[in-house]
Amino acid sequence: MPEQLTLYGHKIELALIEANAPHKAYQVKLLDKPEWFVNKVNPAGKVPAVTYGGPDVDPEDPSPLSAKIAESIVILEFLADLYPDSGLLPKDPVLRANVRFFIDATTKHFHDPFYAFVRGCEPYEYFLKGIEFIQGLLEEGKDFAVGDHYTIADACISPYLTRLKVIIETDLGQYPVGMGYKLGDELKGHKFAKFMKYVERMLERPSLKQTHDQESLIMFFKTYLAERVQ
Amino acid sequence: MPEQLTLYGHKIELALIEANAPHKAYQVKLLDKPEWFVNKVNPAGKVPAVTYGGPDVDPEDPSPLSAKIAESIVILEFLADLYPDSGLLPKDPVLRANVRFFIDATTKHFHDPFYAFVRGCEPYEYFLKGIEFIQGLLEEGKDFAVGDHYTIADACISPYLTRLKVIIETDLGQYPVGMGYKLGDELKGHKFAKFMKYVERMLERPSLKQTHDQESLIMFFKTYLAERVQ
Repeated sequence: MPEQLTLYGHKIELALIEANAPHKAYQVKLLDKPEWFVNKVNPAGKVPAVTYGGPDVDPEDPSPLSAKIAESIVILEFLADLYPDSGLLPKDPVLRANVRFFIDATTKHFHDPFYAFVRGCEPYEYFLKGIEFIQGLLEEGKDFAVGDHYTIADACISPYLTRLKVIIETDLGQYPVGMGYKLGDELKGHKFAKFMKYVERMLERPSLKQTHDQESLIMFFKTYLAERVQ
Repeated sequence: MPEQLTLYGHKIELALIEANAPHKAYQVKLLDKPEWFVNKVNPAGKVPAVTYGGPDVDPEDPSPLSAKIAESIVILEFLADLYPDSGLLPKDPVLRANVRFFIDATTKHFHDPFYAFVRGCEPYEYFLKGIEFIQGLLEEGKDFAVGDHYTIADACISPYLTRLKVIIETDLGQYPVGMGYKLGDELKGHKFAKFMKYVERMLERPSLKQTHDQESLIMFFKTYLAERVQ
């Protein structure tokens, strides 16, 4: 039976829920980061981070006896290792490689171009090319990123799909006015139908709904990312 | 018994050697990339890439029946999955997370700052900060990146250590004249002793010596990376 696990930051909690993994979740205030978090959990001061093992303590008083693990993808792999029968990673080495390739592509072709667009550094067409690449990895007629089961590939991209939804619905971002809506229009076209059906399925997962709050995300975009490029 | 495995590009062959994994290695000419490689192995046209399984064919005539796997880190994880007893990844989930954190850090704190320096985009001090981060992950008195065994963390960083050696010994790069030597001088200082001992150990591994040719690397630097910033 796995040991105590405390997750700081909610972004990848959906993977814990999909694996039915007992855990505590603690939301770190990124604006007003507590000193104990930097000193005792993650010296880089970033979420998500995990404490694993050691005594069952208050999340605000982490024990020196627990292992500390940081970086989203490292944590997702860790959860798949802790719960080898959860399906978070398939058993077959080639399918596992496909999951990891999808995760790598999520960083390079979705995450990075998404923020390049949102920060006004690249036009939406650049991000669309990334989405096209991701869509090319999705198999017709399958529900998940890879194979027939929810994996860490789905858990990795899902939080960014909620962010995509925000920008196409609210036009919040450092890009010129209207470009978020324009991106949304393009995505409604036939060309992106496979990708958008995948987005819809992922946004409907109870694990995502339970851990992501669209309103807070909009607030976050309004506070940090809505200043327009002049 | 694992199936046929053909590795295109030599960069991570050292991991196959460390795992005693039977394989074929094929060097793709990056300057004059064969069409069959892009069409039948990796549509992105990049090495390393692997074909796994299917019939035992000539590397220049890859079979549609083999699985195709790309991206260094994805391939390294794949090898660790194929050879679970090789030690390429430890069995313990926390140690496995440490290996993956080291790999993530290799990309963010070594690979990216290294090329930023070599391409003349950042001063050497920026790269030194990255090296300091990596050094902070190395445990005193241990021979390897993580734990007591050669893992994919060592296999991931080693090819870049050979590139580091080239620039500090030859001053080849798009940085101002002398800055490669200057970086080398800094690394000789007491501050970086732990890191440099690790570098020395890694460069002495037979698996590295067998798969990396300093002369070709120098030729590569001369051809692509030696044009100075004006």
